[in-house]
Amino acid sequence: MSKLLIIGSLAFDEIITPFGQSGKILGGSASYISLAARKVFKGTIGIVSVIGEDFPDEYIQKFRKQNIDLQGVKQLSGEKSFYWKGKYHNDLNKRDTLVTEVNALAKFTPEVPENFKDAKFLMLGNLHPSVQKNVILQMNPRPELIALDTMNFWMDTAWDELLNVLKMIDILIVNDEEARQLTKEYSLVSAAKKIFEMGPKYVIIKKGEHGALLFHEKNIFFAPALPLEEIFDPTGAGDTFAGGFMGQIAKNGPINFDYMKNAVITGSNLASFTVEKFGTQRLEEINKDEINNRLQDFVRLTQFDIELA
Amino acid sequence: MSKLLIIGSLAFDEIITPFGQSGKILGGSASYISLAARKVFKGTIGIVSVIGEDFPDEYIQKFRKQNIDLQGVKQLSGEKSFYWKGKYHNDLNKRDTLVTEVNALAKFTPEVPENFKDAKFLMLGNLHPSVQKNVILQMNPRPELIALDTMNFWMDTAWDELLNVLKMIDILIVNDEEARQLTKEYSLVSAAKKIFEMGPKYVIIKKGEHGALLFHEKNIFFAPALPLEEIFDPTGAGDTFAGGFMGQIAKNGPINFDYMKNAVITGSNLASFTVEKFGTQRLEEINKDEINNRLQDFVRLTQFDIELA
Repeated sequence: MSKLLIIGSLAFDEIITPFGQSGKILGGSASYISLAARKVFKGTIGIVSVIGEDFPDEYIQKFRKQNIDLQGVKQLSGEKSFYWKGKYHNDLNKRDTLVTEVNALAKFTPEVPENFKDAKFLMLGNLHPSVQKNVILQMNPRPELIALDTMNFWMDTAWDELLNVLKMIDILIVNDEEARQLTKEYSLVSAAKKIFEMGPKYVIIKKGEHGALLFHEKNIFFAPALPLEEIFDPTGAGDTFAGGFMGQIAKNGPINFDYMKNAVITGSNLASFTVEKFGTQRLEEINKDEINNRLQDFVRLTQFDIELA
Repeated sequence: MSKLLIIGSLAFDEIITPFGQSGKILGGSASYISLAARKVFKGTIGIVSVIGEDFPDEYIQKFRKQNIDLQGVKQLSGEKSFYWKGKYHNDLNKRDTLVTEVNALAKFTPEVPENFKDAKFLMLGNLHPSVQKNVILQMNPRPELIALDTMNFWMDTAWDELLNVLKMIDILIVNDEEARQLTKEYSLVSAAKKIFEMGPKYVIIKKGEHGALLFHEKNIFFAPALPLEEIFDPTGAGDTFAGGFMGQIAKNGPINFDYMKNAVITGSNLASFTVEKFGTQRLEEINKDEINNRLQDFVRLTQFDIELA
């Protein structure tokens, strides 16, 4: 059975939406990615991350319960865990960051556990590009599929390091705004072409409520977001998407455009659950039937019988 | 063979984009709707509209060449045709209106020609809701399918008349911003539900480059816009969509949700051509093979093999 290794943050989030306040809850890219991947992939999943001494045992148990390996998670004494507090605007499409405390994450030197160095699938969550590169260099042999998420902040502050790590990966997973800033192209088709020149052979551009596009060579596939009557909390939707995507690939393995279509739908499907409640709650509680039923919603939403002119 | 009647404007447009200036060209909702419908529907198509004495014979010939009936188009002497001049911003998602001269359109009293009063399909382009209602009342028997487009301006200035005509139609075709203003709902799913209560049994919400959603009862279908490297001129994309949609329904007739999926894809397909050049140029020149080839692009873009969790 193949292994999926995930690098990302484990954190406290505190979220304010028009519908309520979450209080301090489990957050961080590695949380959403790993819990989402576990929904579809039953093989070995491990996390490489860092936490402070305040990270609750209750959170640790959430991962243990899902058989997610935490050997690669360092707990730093005298440090606090990463903490983010944010408030969404009324339409949930914008948010203001109220507090960011980097804490333990500032001292993060990733160490890949021996038994994960041969992981076939590697998901590099949004972190400093040098940290992401450091992880790639520890892998042996090179994973069959390396996916990377990043953000505008690294384009502004670590441009050269970002370009450097982009040369080493297979799939870039970013949102539309990030793709545009990275390439200075407004058209997402043009942006994907430029990203191919930077290294990745596959590009996924997430458009939030407008779905996601998968690009490879001259091929494009589009997965809509499920039209929802109410979005309760958008936090973690992008990481859930990435986790569902990687989990689906890790499950059956063929690394090609056609199979990735399925994986993109899986990511979009799981993200549609995450936004229904605060944090990782929905992701933790949904079962196989709920996932499969909603998958049928995606089929109904997108499939049609062609009729030529 | 069934008949399709189209009510809308015939006009001069003058368009400025980052790529160039069109000069004065043929514009107006009835132009795009009828020329798009003709691409898929070979039956009888007629226009009810009004023009001034300056409307060039060359434009008239564009419709005659496509066998589009103009009995219902009144030419007012001493009047000029509707004229719109606008300039698009660099990303083409916003535009500023530089000039609007309503001219002949201000004196528009629609008269449906005798042989179109029994048209099976009626498309009411964006005009004053009272004008749209006037046309419906002239039809006998009531068309099997009445579709209506409107805009924010009528919500601001003719709210009661708009609600009145909405009770008489089957499909409302609007963009996301219009749907939100009409219903005061941000979620498009909630907006569609409210619109059902206003009268229409079907709702299409266009999202520009993000595609279009078709709603009926509890069903939703999503047609993406084709991801394009370059959009040259977005003018008329929405009307082309509506024309392609109605043309496809008129072609084969079954008025139900499943067949409308096809029609929504047809509308999206034809709109992807319109934006490639100024005005109606691409719509006039494309052939069946080009349309069918691009339809295959939509299939590749959206169709996937389901794999359950």
